[in-house]
Amino acid sequence: MSEAAAPRQALKPEATIGILGGGQLGRMLALAAARLGFKCHIFAPSPDSPAFDVVHRVTTADYNDTEALDRFANDVDVVTYEFENVPAETATFLAARVPVLPDPQILATTQDRLVEKNFIARLGIGAAAYAEVDAPAALASALERVGRPAILKTRRFGYDGKGHVAIKNGTDPAAAWREVGGQPCILEAYVPFEREISVVAARAHDGAVECFDVAENEHRDHILKISRVPAAIAETTAAEARRIAETVAAKFNYVGVLAVEMFVLREGALLVNEIAPRVHNSGHWTLDGASVSQFEQHIRAVTGWPLARPIRRGRRVEMTNLIGNEVDDYRRFLAMPGTAVHLYGKTAVRPGRKMGHVTQVFAD
Amino acid sequence: MSEAAAPRQALKPEATIGILGGGQLGRMLALAAARLGFKCHIFAPSPDSPAFDVVHRVTTADYNDTEALDRFANDVDVVTYEFENVPAETATFLAARVPVLPDPQILATTQDRLVEKNFIARLGIGAAAYAEVDAPAALASALERVGRPAILKTRRFGYDGKGHVAIKNGTDPAAAWREVGGQPCILEAYVPFEREISVVAARAHDGAVECFDVAENEHRDHILKISRVPAAIAETTAAEARRIAETVAAKFNYVGVLAVEMFVLREGALLVNEIAPRVHNSGHWTLDGASVSQFEQHIRAVTGWPLARPIRRGRRVEMTNLIGNEVDDYRRFLAMPGTAVHLYGKTAVRPGRKMGHVTQVFAD
Repeated sequence: MSEAAAPRQALKPEATIGILGGGQLGRMLALAAARLGFKCHIFAPSPDSPAFDVVHRVTTADYNDTEALDRFANDVDVVTYEFENVPAETATFLAARVPVLPDPQILATTQDRLVEKNFIARLGIGAAAYAEVDAPAALASALERVGRPAILKTRRFGYDGKGHVAIKNGTDPAAAWREVGGQPCILEAYVPFEREISVVAARAHDGAVECFDVAENEHRDHILKISRVPAAIAETTAAEARRIAETVAAKFNYVGVLAVEMFVLREGALLVNEIAPRVHNSGHWTLDGASVSQFEQHIRAVTGWPLARPIRRGRRVEMTNLIGNEVDDYRRFLAMPGTAVHLYGKTAVRPGRKMGHVTQVFAD
Repeated sequence: MSEAAAPRQALKPEATIGILGGGQLGRMLALAAARLGFKCHIFAPSPDSPAFDVVHRVTTADYNDTEALDRFANDVDVVTYEFENVPAETATFLAARVPVLPDPQILATTQDRLVEKNFIARLGIGAAAYAEVDAPAALASALERVGRPAILKTRRFGYDGKGHVAIKNGTDPAAAWREVGGQPCILEAYVPFEREISVVAARAHDGAVECFDVAENEHRDHILKISRVPAAIAETTAAEARRIAETVAAKFNYVGVLAVEMFVLREGALLVNEIAPRVHNSGHWTLDGASVSQFEQHIRAVTGWPLARPIRRGRRVEMTNLIGNEVDDYRRFLAMPGTAVHLYGKTAVRPGRKMGHVTQVFAD
């Protein structure tokens, strides 16, 4: 049984990387690992996992199947994860057997919006006003403190707008509470932002950090639709955004790629919206638009390899998600010069499901 | 049983591409296919095949195992191959069951240097003087016609300088004949070339052709060491090189990517050295140095998708092979800006074995 620590030495290219989660992020991580000569073993509950198609070794099992986790741990040299809702217990179980990066304790923070908000507040980084709501009665007092409009969000398992309810002037708090399922929540003040941006940053064992260019993100129905690079913000704002991401990464003693989503207010002030302890949709542009991708940077970090310094290709880059039926649009993009089409190999098309993306690199 | 013809309609992204051969070319083809949402099934004789690591479905069997080939044909929507020494019988057997692209008949031409030379000659394209040598006696008369220095080459299964013997002024023809194993050969005049170049071209079902920039190639011990793009040749020479590649592809009614290696003589005249009916080492630079890679172009062609127009990134691009023990050099390249490292996942290091490559994109 190996020690539950970061590998002290860089892994050799023939090593095997274990990835928890079999979605498109796991798939793109595995593809990046393959370029560097690594083998990957994907652990995911669904036999339909898109990442299974690009690796030779897979485990189809629940995250609480300790026997399967044991076998998985024995087969791999390091474990990482493609999404933050891997049960923290799973990561902890594995970490007793094999290095798990980023550190599983980070999941405990980012899986709970309240804990995450408290973490950000302690760092002295700006965020929207918020209050804990653990019962209907608490919602009333939270609304008094935070004000309206506000957003009631479940503390756990929210993504792409799931588990969010807006509370405007006429909204009945009791109805909102029912709508989120009466779960522990936080109430967040609505932020009248000008733009949404994100910083995707990689941090290595030795503390070295490389940030990709700040992306400007456009959402539709709470799902990322377009990321544009560089963001149309002042360089001082971009520098501050990178500084925030570096502060978060350093505080976590983070190893790997993480994304910090932020709101830009009218005067350029930044408020952190969310931390994603993983590769991020707003970094997909790096596959075609940068000299190194977020996926390769993550693999480099968790294997103890040095990070690369990313160089953007072209004057600007635009990444567009193909969501649900939009996947059929891929044909339209195939013959466009400087345009790269990525499809995730998902057979079932569902509304809101991310099926692929398209990257356009504009030389000038 | 499906018809042995090119698929009339473009394959859907969830289709499965069968690849004969499990080396690094099959591996990089599979990685390119995965980006586009395709699944791949690799058929290769060796359980150690590097391509196995990046696909979920593999068949480990000999190329004459008709039972395994039958099962393979049933599982895939189209078959392609990563190298030209796949037995033509294998390709023909499969072609009766599933579309095989490029057409297996092309293998019959390119697997035999004599047939290939005759094919080039009939196209009116320049090549070194040559003569058939099927017995020791024929070698003497061939030497009279071709002159010295010359190179005696086995007609079949030669690559990376294997099956080549130089015949200089003092060389005993009988010894040369013994050295190539007394097999059917051709004798080729030695060409006093200035440069070696290659054109990697993709051709689609509808006859559309897209050439990548002409590469200039530097060999060491008969193995490609460096490809530089663009080649240091006049634009008229480059245009003529592309025209030759297009002529060859059109004559074959080719579907997929092929490479034509040529010698550039002092005055800029071009002689064709070799045709490779597959993706080619001198096109590896396109993975990082062009808006679309040779591997993606090949996948697009064989699946009936439109080709992309390749745009070179940077002013010049240089690809260096990591051969044998040189693979350990990868560390040196990891932190170099604008440099991409590719390792093929081969565990056994052998002299002359291609273990990986490095691409450097120079902005200016």
